[in-house]
Amino acid sequence: MSEQKTAAIIGGGVIGGGWAARFLLNGWDVVVSDPDPEAKRKVGEVLANARRSLPALSDVSVPKEGKLSFAASLAEAVAGADWIQESAPERLDIKHTIFAEIQKHCSPDALIGSSTSGFKPSELQQGAARPEQIFVAHPFNPVYLLPVIELVGVEATLLRARDVLDGIGMKPLIVRKEIDAHIADRFLEAVWREALWLIKDGIATTQEIDDVIRYGFGMRWAQMGLFETYRIAGGEAGMRHFIAQFGPCLSWPWTKLMDVPELTQELTDMIADQSDAQSGMHSIRELERIRDDNLVAMMRALKGRNWGSGELLNAHDVRNKPPLPTGIDKPLTTLERVIPIDWMDYNGHMNESRYGQVFSDAGDVVMAMVGADQEYIAGGLSYFTVSNEIGYLNETHLGDVIHVRTQVLEARGKKLRLYHEMIRTADNELLATCNQLLIHVSLETRRSCEPEGEVLAKITALGEAQSKLPKPASMRD
Amino acid sequence: MSEQKTAAIIGGGVIGGGWAARFLLNGWDVVVSDPDPEAKRKVGEVLANARRSLPALSDVSVPKEGKLSFAASLAEAVAGADWIQESAPERLDIKHTIFAEIQKHCSPDALIGSSTSGFKPSELQQGAARPEQIFVAHPFNPVYLLPVIELVGVEATLLRARDVLDGIGMKPLIVRKEIDAHIADRFLEAVWREALWLIKDGIATTQEIDDVIRYGFGMRWAQMGLFETYRIAGGEAGMRHFIAQFGPCLSWPWTKLMDVPELTQELTDMIADQSDAQSGMHSIRELERIRDDNLVAMMRALKGRNWGSGELLNAHDVRNKPPLPTGIDKPLTTLERVIPIDWMDYNGHMNESRYGQVFSDAGDVVMAMVGADQEYIAGGLSYFTVSNEIGYLNETHLGDVIHVRTQVLEARGKKLRLYHEMIRTADNELLATCNQLLIHVSLETRRSCEPEGEVLAKITALGEAQSKLPKPASMRD
Repeated sequence: MSEQKTAAIIGGGVIGGGWAARFLLNGWDVVVSDPDPEAKRKVGEVLANARRSLPALSDVSVPKEGKLSFAASLAEAVAGADWIQESAPERLDIKHTIFAEIQKHCSPDALIGSSTSGFKPSELQQGAARPEQIFVAHPFNPVYLLPVIELVGVEATLLRARDVLDGIGMKPLIVRKEIDAHIADRFLEAVWREALWLIKDGIATTQEIDDVIRYGFGMRWAQMGLFETYRIAGGEAGMRHFIAQFGPCLSWPWTKLMDVPELTQELTDMIADQSDAQSGMHSIRELERIRDDNLVAMMRALKGRNWGSGELLNAHDVRNKPPLPTGIDKPLTTLERVIPIDWMDYNGHMNESRYGQVFSDAGDVVMAMVGADQEYIAGGLSYFTVSNEIGYLNETHLGDVIHVRTQVLEARGKKLRLYHEMIRTADNELLATCNQLLIHVSLETRRSCEPEGEVLAKITALGEAQSKLPKPASMRD
Repeated sequence: MSEQKTAAIIGGGVIGGGWAARFLLNGWDVVVSDPDPEAKRKVGEVLANARRSLPALSDVSVPKEGKLSFAASLAEAVAGADWIQESAPERLDIKHTIFAEIQKHCSPDALIGSSTSGFKPSELQQGAARPEQIFVAHPFNPVYLLPVIELVGVEATLLRARDVLDGIGMKPLIVRKEIDAHIADRFLEAVWREALWLIKDGIATTQEIDDVIRYGFGMRWAQMGLFETYRIAGGEAGMRHFIAQFGPCLSWPWTKLMDVPELTQELTDMIADQSDAQSGMHSIRELERIRDDNLVAMMRALKGRNWGSGELLNAHDVRNKPPLPTGIDKPLTTLERVIPIDWMDYNGHMNESRYGQVFSDAGDVVMAMVGADQEYIAGGLSYFTVSNEIGYLNETHLGDVIHVRTQVLEARGKKLRLYHEMIRTADNELLATCNQLLIHVSLETRRSCEPEGEVLAKITALGEAQSKLPKPASMRD
């Protein structure tokens, strides 16, 4: 009982709901207080989104979800709470009223965070019974997925808050001095302001602005941020060189646009020293490769979602797709590809599950050859794999070019058996084999059934032609 | 012969080298012209990075790499080129001299792009023999991975340039009106300027600024950009609501910082209409789920690289990791987890290769139990899987909680045979089985050998205890 922690969520909008979900899915009990009669529905919607996404970030078992309740009053909500999070509208008078009520009823040991994006802690604390108890804990939407939290306030309180946030998987960042809009929102405001000008002046549309970000520097920022990216641009000479090289030429458009701090030797040294402390353990060459591996992995992830830069890659693949194998009376070359970084494991070779992916993709090519393609699937029929027997013969490494040679062993009615050999193209080395059994199914009934029409004719013809070939040498009987 | 295209790269630094790599790896021949005696080495280094990353973005076979050569003169480089890309230093007089020389020797049909980040095409074209031939084609580093290119110049020329860039997998974006620093660099400058102030005023370090970006809004921008993200923040009421809601409160810090366009009804309508055209085909609920799926997929990709927000997730997994199974005389619960979005395939169920991953991870837990862990591997010994026979019994869906029950069938000397059952936890349904054969190997000789010391003792004891159990009911003999 003493172990079970409770968070009080004051204000159940998108941000409050996100906090509630983050705590609940990390095993905390949550009490929500919001006068809005729609609060229950709104929190429920955010929680539904969180339940389908946050647990999937974990590769181990996730904590048992905490208990969610809605309090009749603010007093009731905060009475037993360990963490109290205020996400009320951005009006200082409203927040002051809420903090007064909270402090009347909460434990003096409770942590009271505010989701404010603009106010400084000194403003929030005005007139409070225990000012040091109140601090800024500024999250980013969606709160249940994005981990960073800006903490601003009294250090002793923030250190306790940091421990709590670490425990629920977040990335607390203690801001050294209070400032309007903390850190991140200053950047967001600067970009928003530029974006408004670009639209007003007819330079770019919302779509074009979004595209220039998500197909470009947004991908860099998602994994390295600003300074580590520029450190790479400076090359082996480092940040001092970057500033020396780009400072003067960038100051030209800058000074036309607005005020900028003078790049004195002192400021240059400060940036360079901080960058050394941050990234100096990696050479520029190492940073380049880390960056490239991150970009490839992220873009491949977006490929799976067919979104943004991943959608572009898929379109490019379609354009470069080789024709389907022709000539059904010889083994089929079903696949040719490069082994990417996200397929590697800790042994320094391709993870064994990826062999399954290669063979699954090779099987899909046989499907496409006989017309069991996306359109056929959309019509409610498909082949499902019943079993795979994979033999691992040789290791496969990053960047290897491989191809798959496939032979149809059996194709009768709803049963289809394929034999795949995965071969390293450079030296013709056999890397792995797969004996794949597929069954034709109705996607409606989820039961096996005969293929239909042209697919039946084609798979039968393919099976007959291939059954006359000698069995692959690598096949064990 | 007439099909083979040639790009002339004028200036072989990081940007020029990136262009060279992008063209070469998409099958173009490339001629580099650069007076720097180090140009060959520099282009070679960029090309080495590109070769290990760009092909991995493709899931089909990649084009045969083109021929790379270095020209003795600019005249020689551009003589037969279809595309000429200038990436010289950012000085207008230098660029004018280069364009004059290029136009003296190139085909009038060649496309002449400039990588300039600051100059407008009207400035580049000053005094040119054929001004309409010269345009801005501004890329982002690394050019071989990031696809967006800002195109500014004469429309007819840009339409031809766009076709070429589409063909090499890029995302050309035609800028409607010329402006200093085009589009993206205006954002980069605005953020850079804010960052300099934050460092100078002691608010944040380079590390803290990078962290607030890459653990926060940088992840949003990598997949949706600015406006689609804010459209979601506005909720079902859309962009007009967002601007109405956040306009007034944001204008407060804005106006203290700098000039901002007035949010007139006209500007509000313009933004809202453009946003409708861009994203109106999705409801806000759909956009939220698309965003969340993208974020999960990207963060899971970074997990694989143990970097940024992915490093944080790995640390959180370690904290939440369940203890290793104890009690060796009963079947082992080796794994429990949720099925994530990036494991789904087009049939709407878990891709068959991911079963292999589940069983591979379950096998790793047995390894950890007997002490064949990361440290043991670092010492040069490990188990490799020789074969897997996977039986697929039931479909697995997004968000399913599953666990794996593992039985050691045989553990003698270097040979280890495991039998895994993957079970849906909610209803105890058996989803798949795997008969996994592993062999103990020396990572040095890459040959099989006996396990050593405590690992040998533990695996033998585990094998003996488990061999007394009845065979799993699902096992086919």
